[in-house]
Amino acid sequence: MSIRDHIAETLDRSVTRNVITGVILFNAVILGLETSDTVMAVAGDLIVLLDVLCLSVFVIEIGLKIFARGPSFFRSGWNVFDFAIVAIALVPATQGLSVLRALRILRLLRIISVAPTLRRVVEGFVTALPGMASVFLLMALIFYIAAVMSTKLFGEAFPEWFGSIPLSAYSLFQIMTLESWSMGIVRPVMEIYPYAWIFFVPFILVTTFAVVNLVVGLIVNSMQDAHAQESNAATEDYRDEVLKRLEAIERHLSESETRQK
Amino acid sequence: MSIRDHIAETLDRSVTRNVITGVILFNAVILGLETSDTVMAVAGDLIVLLDVLCLSVFVIEIGLKIFARGPSFFRSGWNVFDFAIVAIALVPATQGLSVLRALRILRLLRIISVAPTLRRVVEGFVTALPGMASVFLLMALIFYIAAVMSTKLFGEAFPEWFGSIPLSAYSLFQIMTLESWSMGIVRPVMEIYPYAWIFFVPFILVTTFAVVNLVVGLIVNSMQDAHAQESNAATEDYRDEVLKRLEAIERHLSESETRQK
Amino acid sequence: MSIRDHIAETLDRSVTRNVITGVILFNAVILGLETSDTVMAVAGDLIVLLDVLCLSVFVIEIGLKIFARGPSFFRSGWNVFDFAIVAIALVPATQGLSVLRALRILRLLRIISVAPTLRRVVEGFVTALPGMASVFLLMALIFYIAAVMSTKLFGEAFPEWFGSIPLSAYSLFQIMTLESWSMGIVRPVMEIYPYAWIFFVPFILVTTFAVVNLVVGLIVNSMQDAHAQESNAATEDYRDEVLKRLEAIERHLSESETRQK
Amino acid sequence: MSIRDHIAETLDRSVTRNVITGVILFNAVILGLETSDTVMAVAGDLIVLLDVLCLSVFVIEIGLKIFARGPSFFRSGWNVFDFAIVAIALVPATQGLSVLRALRILRLLRIISVAPTLRRVVEGFVTALPGMASVFLLMALIFYIAAVMSTKLFGEAFPEWFGSIPLSAYSLFQIMTLESWSMGIVRPVMEIYPYAWIFFVPFILVTTFAVVNLVVGLIVNSMQDAHAQESNAATEDYRDEVLKRLEAIERHLSESETRQK
Repeated sequence: MSIRDHIAETLDRSVTRNVITGVILFNAVILGLETSDTVMAVAGDLIVLLDVLCLSVFVIEIGLKIFARGPSFFRSGWNVFDFAIVAIALVPATQGLSVLRALRILRLLRIISVAPTLRRVVEGFVTALPGMASVFLLMALIFYIAAVMSTKLFGEAFPEWFGSIPLSAYSLFQIMTLESWSMGIVRPVMEIYPYAWIFFVPFILVTTFAVVNLVVGLIVNSMQDAHAQESNAATEDYRDEVLKRLEAIERHLSESETRQK
Repeated sequence: MSIRDHIAETLDRSVTRNVITGVILFNAVILGLETSDTVMAVAGDLIVLLDVLCLSVFVIEIGLKIFARGPSFFRSGWNVFDFAIVAIALVPATQGLSVLRALRILRLLRIISVAPTLRRVVEGFVTALPGMASVFLLMALIFYIAAVMSTKLFGEAFPEWFGSIPLSAYSLFQIMTLESWSMGIVRPVMEIYPYAWIFFVPFILVTTFAVVNLVVGLIVNSMQDAHAQESNAATEDYRDEVLKRLEAIERHLSESETRQK
Repeated sequence: MSIRDHIAETLDRSVTRNVITGVILFNAVILGLETSDTVMAVAGDLIVLLDVLCLSVFVIEIGLKIFARGPSFFRSGWNVFDFAIVAIALVPATQGLSVLRALRILRLLRIISVAPTLRRVVEGFVTALPGMASVFLLMALIFYIAAVMSTKLFGEAFPEWFGSIPLSAYSLFQIMTLESWSMGIVRPVMEIYPYAWIFFVPFILVTTFAVVNLVVGLIVNSMQDAHAQESNAATEDYRDEVLKRLEAIERHLSESETRQK
Repeated sequence: MSIRDHIAETLDRSVTRNVITGVILFNAVILGLETSDTVMAVAGDLIVLLDVLCLSVFVIEIGLKIFARGPSFFRSGWNVFDFAIVAIALVPATQGLSVLRALRILRLLRIISVAPTLRRVVEGFVTALPGMASVFLLMALIFYIAAVMSTKLFGEAFPEWFGSIPLSAYSLFQIMTLESWSMGIVRPVMEIYPYAWIFFVPFILVTTFAVVNLVVGLIVNSMQDAHAQESNAATEDYRDEVLKRLEAIERHLSESETRQK
């Protein structure tokens, strides 16, 4: 057994897994405490030190995994996911890029790749996505068209909401979620363009209908998966049994006929 | 092979389709750029020229299609759809009708009639509509009744929201989507008519219940379609097999009886 | 054939039905026009006259129906519904009871009892209700408890929203629909009672969960109805066929055994 | 029959149940009246007295139940529920703890443990929860990550909304319910951090998708339960019948073969 296999085996042990899970959760608490000014004033250095320690554990773990598995490590989506999350933390966040510092909490997402239950839920979510691809494409289309139209129609009078295509797309997303669509956006717009509802009401109806269809598609797919898994086991057994018996009867009859002749 | 058949065949080729798809997407980008003032200041003439070029391609394509297929062209709903979209762009938009200019982005919808996946999604949406016709009719009824009632009850005190039937219908649509229904509309109304909630709360309950029933109807229909397609193939095969074998057994038995006599 | 039967038969004819439907729709338009001040200024007398005429038709129709069917008329829920709607219009609306005048548009609801499609939809809605009775009862319970609690906790500081049980119930209904629940109600409340979210967030979770369960119940019921109607017809036929054939085979065998003895 | 059995039997009688139900409902009315200042001014002493009387009934009932059943009383979840609700009322609410006084209306929840229909609904709700545990865990994860990130990113500029992890979690819950998410929170935030939508829009999409998946899971589970209960009874009978008959036929044939030899 080579040293690589040895490391791979050690990393796969449930003890190692539990330790890593513990470090992830501990790091989550550390990063949570980092947001509190009072805690940072009292024990800022300790917090930073513990965070660096946790990060070191992750870097070593991932490094060993890459060493043990070689390039095949990157073939699993979850490994790439782990690698990316840890890599983010290593980018030097010196020049005021506080965003990168904030992204470090994403490390907590590693718990998903470690815990099989959460992994299965996320995999369930992800596998549901391709089936909805064409509806998403259609919605992207509707959004682009609606964004261009609303920019041309209302952009001049309401530059804050419809001044450019991205601004319009954001406003339309807000309208699709039905948040303040009327009191906040459409009623003010209608004070200048009284027929604006001819644009917005159909937009709401169409996008809501598309979203409902997405949900319906999800339900139907889940039902079919559940149905296929469950009922067929018993039914298949029963059907095989019936057909086997019918064959046996036919064989009996054929034999008795041959004998009679 | 006549020249008509030749043109029809050329238009049906996947190369032509891809070119048209490319022109549609390119035109979408052009119409998107048209909304940007800075782009228009730098390259306004080029943008307009490219738009005219794209439009020419569509006009020629549709023209050739009509020539090739004759009056039967208009028998397909999707052809009429393509024709209407291109026709809108040809209406002269001189006299300040900026709305017509804005409608030109609808040309991007042609991508739906070109891409089979999107086509199927939209056809799925459209076939779902007739089944919901009676619920829609019922909702139209409820809206008309509620609009007349709210106009009579609250129109005088709140002319902005309930001044006429169309204004009331719009406000009621807003209330149905639950947007600012209470803080924005019903609480102010209740300051003058303290019992206004007797009208609005049942309205919300009834319309929400109707919408839920629409969604339930959609789910049940989709399930049945999916169910009918999938499970029956295997079941039908099995049932045919069982009946065939039972018949064979009966035939065997009848024959052996005849022989015995 | 007595005169009663004669009247009953005439009223059941599709011609009579269509005439009544026409009168209902015409009356709906008349009542709609009544909301317009300009129309009333020009042709107010005509509108009022036509409304009286329509009402007379309904009164005569209902009167004849009661005469023709006798007390059994009131056994059908739809007849009682029609009677109540017409009766509302006959209550004298003199002393400023504009509400009663507004209720006259409810007459348009008679179209539901006349049109079989709409009738079926409404009957579908109504039959779905008893199955949800226990969840409704539970929600009434939650609402009463929450209303008493919020009145005691926040009533003093926010008399406008939680001053009494009915006011609290209305505010809680608004919160359940998620309308301005946080920015409009809970954030202001939290400025005085910082732990108010301990009451409101669970309330939202529980009521939303109950509503979701209502919808899930509706979906499951509709599915079962649809399933029972559709698939069983074919399945029942197949099963009967299989059992019949199996019995026939057994009979054959018993007979041949008897012969052999 | 010991005195314990005697008490246990008396408590289980439907008469006792009805009396307790009556006392619960009467107490609910009393506690409701307590919220009205005018009622308390007129008959405050009576109300308080009646409340103490009702509470005494509950205390005696629970005391007798504990005496009759012994420690096994606390094995049923519903008994613990009843005990906790009554116990709350006995905590002395002297030192301005008006919250404890408000909690007394929770006694009305005892109606759930008394009425079998409501009990079944709540048990249905509770049994649905474990199946959703992993999705809940995932949402808790997403909320914690998003709360830490938003506190770090926007905490300084918007201390009221994102000043600490709990404040952020509350604001994110509000955003998840789509209440004023754009006009109330994200648009103001975007005025300082123009790219804030990169954080909030995916947050909305992910959490909404997770909630939709929860609902889909509920629907699929309910369907399977309903499906399993209903269709299988008839199907099982049919299948048993078919297999029994097939076996009988085979037996016939084997016997006739033996005879022929």
